[in-house]
Amino acid sequence: MLRPDAKAAAVGNAVDQDRLWDLLMRLAEIGALENGGVNRQALTELDTEAKNFVIEWARARGFSAFQDDAANLFVRMPGAAASQDPLIVGSHLDSQPTGGKFDGAFGVLAGLEVLESIRQQGLTPERPIEVAAWTNEEASRFLPGATGSSAFAGTRELSAVLDNRTVDGARVGDELAASIAATRAELRPIHSVRPCASLEIHIEQGPILEQAGLPVGIVKGIQGVRRIQVEILGETAHAGTTQQALRKDALDGAARIMVSLRSLTKDYDDILRLTFGRIDSFPNSPGTVTGKVRLTIDLRHPDKAVMDKVEGLIREVAPAQAHPCRTEVRVLSTVDPIAFDPSIIGLLENCANMMNASGPLMLSGAGHDSLHLGRICPTGMVFVACEGGISHHEAENAKPFDLALGTRVLAAAAWTLANR
Amino acid sequence: MLRPDAKAAAVGNAVDQDRLWDLLMRLAEIGALENGGVNRQALTELDTEAKNFVIEWARARGFSAFQDDAANLFVRMPGAAASQDPLIVGSHLDSQPTGGKFDGAFGVLAGLEVLESIRQQGLTPERPIEVAAWTNEEASRFLPGATGSSAFAGTRELSAVLDNRTVDGARVGDELAASIAATRAELRPIHSVRPCASLEIHIEQGPILEQAGLPVGIVKGIQGVRRIQVEILGETAHAGTTQQALRKDALDGAARIMVSLRSLTKDYDDILRLTFGRIDSFPNSPGTVTGKVRLTIDLRHPDKAVMDKVEGLIREVAPAQAHPCRTEVRVLSTVDPIAFDPSIIGLLENCANMMNASGPLMLSGAGHDSLHLGRICPTGMVFVACEGGISHHEAENAKPFDLALGTRVLAAAAWTLANR
Repeated sequence: MLRPDAKAAAVGNAVDQDRLWDLLMRLAEIGALENGGVNRQALTELDTEAKNFVIEWARARGFSAFQDDAANLFVRMPGAAASQDPLIVGSHLDSQPTGGKFDGAFGVLAGLEVLESIRQQGLTPERPIEVAAWTNEEASRFLPGATGSSAFAGTRELSAVLDNRTVDGARVGDELAASIAATRAELRPIHSVRPCASLEIHIEQGPILEQAGLPVGIVKGIQGVRRIQVEILGETAHAGTTQQALRKDALDGAARIMVSLRSLTKDYDDILRLTFGRIDSFPNSPGTVTGKVRLTIDLRHPDKAVMDKVEGLIREVAPAQAHPCRTEVRVLSTVDPIAFDPSIIGLLENCANMMNASGPLMLSGAGHDSLHLGRICPTGMVFVACEGGISHHEAENAKPFDLALGTRVLAAAAWTLANR
Repeated sequence: MLRPDAKAAAVGNAVDQDRLWDLLMRLAEIGALENGGVNRQALTELDTEAKNFVIEWARARGFSAFQDDAANLFVRMPGAAASQDPLIVGSHLDSQPTGGKFDGAFGVLAGLEVLESIRQQGLTPERPIEVAAWTNEEASRFLPGATGSSAFAGTRELSAVLDNRTVDGARVGDELAASIAATRAELRPIHSVRPCASLEIHIEQGPILEQAGLPVGIVKGIQGVRRIQVEILGETAHAGTTQQALRKDALDGAARIMVSLRSLTKDYDDILRLTFGRIDSFPNSPGTVTGKVRLTIDLRHPDKAVMDKVEGLIREVAPAQAHPCRTEVRVLSTVDPIAFDPSIIGLLENCANMMNASGPLMLSGAGHDSLHLGRICPTGMVFVACEGGISHHEAENAKPFDLALGTRVLAAAAWTLANR
């Protein structure tokens, strides 16, 4: 079992709440919005500005900065054994269009605070530590999300993304090239670095920690997410002249499918997440019976077998409930759940105990870059409570004390892993 | 009881199937679309061209043409008693953007065929007969529909419409003025004419006649139509992190409302028309629990009391089913049902018998200009079967024989009413 030692405690305790908060507030000026949030979408000039802000921070302290073909940024603290695989601590700098100050940014800046704490203790880790800022975790400007971390981990080919278009019409490959050219860090090949382990700290983006009155939680895994599209194919008809018995009303069919699935998937442990987030109805005209509905279902669960079972249920229920309409069901995307490495979870629990954070084990409902890192190296995550569980919103907020406490846990664990 | 006499029979039998069909096909060239339909939206240049086509037809036969402030067009056959209130026979020339050749146009051209039949018999009616083309029945280019007939009948003030905008951004008042200036007919004040009675012939726009193998039906009334908007107000939340128990999902609420209302309004006579034609969901993003849904319900029935009852049911069911979301229910528009004058219905039945058309009594599911005319004078309508019940579509079609047979019924009734 991995246990933090006295030096890990010293590094954790060196985390400075005010210094961290100040860094968070300075970064939040880049892309700042009126109501306290930020709009710093991936590969925009503001995103590059944020990366250069981090690079300046690194240079001022003698750290080098690298970027790779996916425009991922790395700030590197050298290790005593220079040739060893580095520990990576990271998250992302890009935000939703009306996002908050903490989602992603906190994970990158907490990584910098870990480096600062080690440096101020006059210590050098055995292995290098790299703080990563992964490209386009949010997927608000272009698909797919977690572009950078998935390319780095090799779970998705970067080449398959280059011809995608951003919502503003640009080619992703061109935007990547422009961002790399404007970022003041040396370029290195994407697969030239293989991490020995990976850590990420993130606000929870849910209400569990706050409701339990706990500032910090240890993430044991990330639930899988599958997007399933159900098309209900009926027939348009005049709302005034067409008898009910002759109608094939696609919206009626969609309503029956939703009500039936909700009832059939009742989960008394409240772990399954089934969301009918998007409905597109055609022609969507008040005086016309709906001819076609496209319903997008978001299905999440920590157990892949349960996800498969619910997908099977959708495939059964849709045609039965939509009758006399036809249905077509297809999976738009799927990401399997991940269970984090038990040794990392154990270490983070030990570090939390040492820092008096007593973080409970919990699942992540949202996806994160660590989902991809976890496929190639032992990976773990720390969650920090956020106000009202609100995220992807300008009102997103967290307490300076909680953020610092989480960072202490992260710092102690990082030191331990870098000296294993 | 009004009965057609021998002259009425002669006028009816003088209706010429080929002449009528030829006129229909010539008018359909104005705004013709690739797949056999027309795009001749209200107050466009093509609409004015169609009016001038009708005016030329009239002038060539010695009839005068008038227009009024609402750009309604009237072709006048003088009566022996010139000062008597005229009989009006009419419908509309405007179409949906991808409309058919018959909806509206048939009613105007059948009116012209009635005049032609009377003229060819060398007869003069006691009262004047005016063939009307009412402005903007369709409401596809601007609201409200039946602009011309409602202004003429005084059921809606024309002045309240002038500042409305067309879908292409023009002011309705300016478009009216431009159309009137380009139409080669004398202007007369809108309320200077009061009809003694009114007739309209129209394709059914539904499948009932065709399915019964009957070419012609007599309309006993037009069902009322009420548009009711239900807003379901929930709370947006992250689809991955928010437990089901904590959600206020507006789309779930909307689905329960639809399923419940459909079940509670089951009508074994299949007369009630309840259509959820439009659903707008916000933010309509796959990974987000829906915060708001706006559902537009189209409710139609021939009995106002039933409409009131169903509206009451919606007001009860919406909050109960949407819980824990809130709901707001409001009536967007309402047009009461109309039952046509029994003496006109009886006359049309007698004329149908005389012409061997044996038309059944039926209700109109769609709204028509006669809904407004029926508020100020005895009014009746004749329906003609259309192929597959299809309308508001380029594929709209009807049989030359059926169109002529319906026009014979119309002609016999018009002669009778003009000589009452």
